[in-house]
Amino acid sequence: MESIEITVATGRHPTVVDLTSEAAAFVSGRGDGLLSVFVPHATAGLAIIETGAGSDSDLLASIDDLLPAQEGRWRHRHGSPGHGRDHVLPAWIAPSVTVPVIGGRMTLGTWQSLVLVDTNGDNPTRRVRFSFIAG
Amino acid sequence: MESIEITVATGRHPTVVDLTSEAAAFVSGRGDGLLSVFVPHATAGLAIIETGAGSDSDLLASIDDLLPAQEGRWRHRHGSPGHGRDHVLPAWIAPSVTVPVIGGRMTLGTWQSLVLVDTNGDNPTRRVRFSFIAG
Amino acid sequence: MESIEITVATGRHPTVVDLTSEAAAFVSGRGDGLLSVFVPHATAGLAIIETGAGSDSDLLASIDDLLPAQEGRWRHRHGSPGHGRDHVLPAWIAPSVTVPVIGGRMTLGTWQSLVLVDTNGDNPTRRVRFSFIAG
Repeated sequence: MESIEITVATGRHPTVVDLTSEAAAFVSGRGDGLLSVFVPHATAGLAIIETGAGSDSDLLASIDDLLPAQEGRWRHRHGSPGHGRDHVLPAWIAPSVTVPVIGGRMTLGTWQSLVLVDTNGDNPTRRVRFSFIAG
Repeated sequence: MESIEITVATGRHPTVVDLTSEAAAFVSGRGDGLLSVFVPHATAGLAIIETGAGSDSDLLASIDDLLPAQEGRWRHRHGSPGHGRDHVLPAWIAPSVTVPVIGGRMTLGTWQSLVLVDTNGDNPTRRVRFSFIAG
Repeated sequence: MESIEITVATGRHPTVVDLTSEAAAFVSGRGDGLLSVFVPHATAGLAIIETGAGSDSDLLASIDDLLPAQEGRWRHRHGSPGHGRDHVLPAWIAPSVTVPVIGGRMTLGTWQSLVLVDTNGDNPTRRVRFSFIAG
């Protein structure tokens, strides 16, 4: 297995960061197998969605709707007010996703991008692990 | 790695389509390893649930409840009114799932079925990729 | 592929059970590869979250909020009142997760734990499958 960790700038506000080109570069030339993408943080997740046509903002809005960052709502009280919801997020939007790779290319559909979903403004940089297992 | 794409008829309305028998046929005779199931579309997801006892409808109802297909609610405005929620769906119900395979059989529990979850009536057919990596 | 099933006591109430030490013991000494964790039950899921600081309770509260165990709300009517929501849960919190392993250790972040999420009090014990595929 080949495995690397990259660092991603996520800033001080909830954000969706496109990782597709980093993942594509990692698997390039590797033949057939599975790409595992993994975020070693307790307040972020991974998703495969269309980016650039509003869905990134829609996703953040749906997170605010379903898991409100409301002070007093969550038992977890470390960090900024409402930060407890950031800790529930990865149960719903998991920090692990697997993508098949054929001939060194991810089998993503035309409108699919791999993104990091990070609602936690307390951590401005994140690590993401790419691992490739040949088959 | 062995990998194929199948075509699934999903029709013009939100639907849950059972893929268990197609997946079982794909892994049959392959020994031990991991089955990766992947949907190369930006408006569909995969789930492992019980089918045939109401939970397929319950799942679609819960999606309507949590991600309403309401016109004006979503920034993504292509396609049918409310279609923006279809683009948020795969962040919550991911288009990728992995199932262990032992002796050519998925290790699903008695009541588990593998299903495609597709709320997008604009695309009446979908592709699903099965990949098997032996271990 | 090495694969085992363990039995987990989940009791008669909704619960989050930490499986990190069991998973760590399973991969210990196995080198590099992917750990697949899979729950062969139709009313439970897996998550990677921080435990012990309130987020386990927060997660159960968010499930009660988003998928209420309300009698009459769900079509699936077997089991205890409101049990239908337990059958929708695994579509949102999947029963399958993959974790990279390097040098016999999961690449979890400092605050990440692997947990079983089980809202179904009708089944006091559960099985969980760990599979390791070397790379």
